[in-house]
Amino acid sequence: MSPKPDPLFRTSRRIEFADTDMAGIVHFANFFRFMEAAEVDFLRSRSLSVVMHWEGQKISFPRVAASCDYLRPIRFQDVVDITVSLQRVGRKSVTYAFEFFRGAELIARGQLSSVCCLASDGGGIKSIEIPASIRERLQADPQK
Amino acid sequence: MSPKPDPLFRTSRRIEFADTDMAGIVHFANFFRFMEAAEVDFLRSRSLSVVMHWEGQKISFPRVAASCDYLRPIRFQDVVDITVSLQRVGRKSVTYAFEFFRGAELIARGQLSSVCCLASDGGGIKSIEIPASIRERLQADPQK
Amino acid sequence: MSPKPDPLFRTSRRIEFADTDMAGIVHFANFFRFMEAAEVDFLRSRSLSVVMHWEGQKISFPRVAASCDYLRPIRFQDVVDITVSLQRVGRKSVTYAFEFFRGAELIARGQLSSVCCLASDGGGIKSIEIPASIRERLQADPQK
Amino acid sequence: MSPKPDPLFRTSRRIEFADTDMAGIVHFANFFRFMEAAEVDFLRSRSLSVVMHWEGQKISFPRVAASCDYLRPIRFQDVVDITVSLQRVGRKSVTYAFEFFRGAELIARGQLSSVCCLASDGGGIKSIEIPASIRERLQADPQK
Repeated sequence: MSPKPDPLFRTSRRIEFADTDMAGIVHFANFFRFMEAAEVDFLRSRSLSVVMHWEGQKISFPRVAASCDYLRPIRFQDVVDITVSLQRVGRKSVTYAFEFFRGAELIARGQLSSVCCLASDGGGIKSIEIPASIRERLQADPQK
Repeated sequence: MSPKPDPLFRTSRRIEFADTDMAGIVHFANFFRFMEAAEVDFLRSRSLSVVMHWEGQKISFPRVAASCDYLRPIRFQDVVDITVSLQRVGRKSVTYAFEFFRGAELIARGQLSSVCCLASDGGGIKSIEIPASIRERLQADPQK
Repeated sequence: MSPKPDPLFRTSRRIEFADTDMAGIVHFANFFRFMEAAEVDFLRSRSLSVVMHWEGQKISFPRVAASCDYLRPIRFQDVVDITVSLQRVGRKSVTYAFEFFRGAELIARGQLSSVCCLASDGGGIKSIEIPASIRERLQADPQK
Repeated sequence: MSPKPDPLFRTSRRIEFADTDMAGIVHFANFFRFMEAAEVDFLRSRSLSVVMHWEGQKISFPRVAASCDYLRPIRFQDVVDITVSLQRVGRKSVTYAFEFFRGAELIARGQLSSVCCLASDGGGIKSIEIPASIRERLQADPQK
């Protein structure tokens, strides 16, 4: 794994009752929904989205890989802080790294990898190079 | 409420871990997913679906109402039998009634109402009369 | 139906990608998750919850009925405002009414009914009268 | 990664409408629900479960890691076959490998790692060695 990049973005959410399972904790699959929502918040902060129109065409970022390591459980009503980092921006793909915290406690670490795709005629999609203008917004320094 | 119609269809499912919540029972919102899946099973048994192509056009059945009464909780690994009845077939809409059983025990009763819609040019939808051929298949007697 | 009570509480949420279905809109079952989350926000504003400890005992509010009428679809990234009203507070049960808005547009109307229950010895639950202190907090006028 | 073990178990499921998202395909987070359900089916075939009573104590298998690689999208009504393999059985943990197929097409590959835990007094859990009798059932050759 590459050295851990600085987080570019932070968001938070409160755990809902429907996020829990009979073990009394957040069901592990829901961390992937939370990562996606954090990614979308990050993209929106840069006027981007997971599905967007760009120069008259529809660009989307279907996932090619997702993973999560679970360190501690979280529960109903917990407030979870989520950091978003760019682990890697390739020619066609982007990998985000996420960390989940409850206060100072690290709860989980995850990654999502997506490929930049263009809706082609007839309903299919094909992978394309990430357009330069999107790449710039993704990688912009948050301090500037 | 109209007199209870005879069920036209029966299906069953086993409760999954992710269906439960921290109360140790199936989360109430999941009964609506289960009703929809039973509806789809019923429609498939009649060569229909909630989204289908019909004479070159796309027909869908968006929901206008959904309700459920909960009598008993159900839990992880329970096998639930679900009956599907046609409560009412109107000119443009259809209302299904569902009953959930665990063995002989009635667990819950629900209803879903949908309106027959045609995808119009430009991505919108508009309600239409249920085509006669679809209506016939919906109402066919299962014994025949 | 009783005359519509004044809303006691307002909350809002932004629609997430995972809330949508292949029709491009929020899946109808998710409105029940949203109602529950709004109920929990309302209860928290009054130092209550759907599961709470009260005089050394565990009180919960399992659902006995849920319903929703859908007027307009909502989509990814829409911000939805949700109002919470007390439709009825009975001896043992409470019914909430919810309205969903996108800006000034009414999107959906729903209801949730729950029964006040005490965890009994041995893991079961039994319905009880809503304790007076909980009833008072539920019904307190928000202006005061 | 260790050499790929032979699958011990096969199960299948039909994709439901609520499993899809606005991209028209199964939402990536749902593959984790599907892996868990396949794991539970596998365990049930060996008289085990993700939560079980064993010599008077409650044993559960909380997840410590989950990952999935997505090769092709799957859609509403697709029937997906899922194979379950034991990637690794450690002293306290077990890692399952899953493959998703639609017909002969490989759709996705995933892994779930869980730690064997005992419910301790007071509601917490602590990791323990996997009891020998559980280990034997996990690793039993399906042909025998």
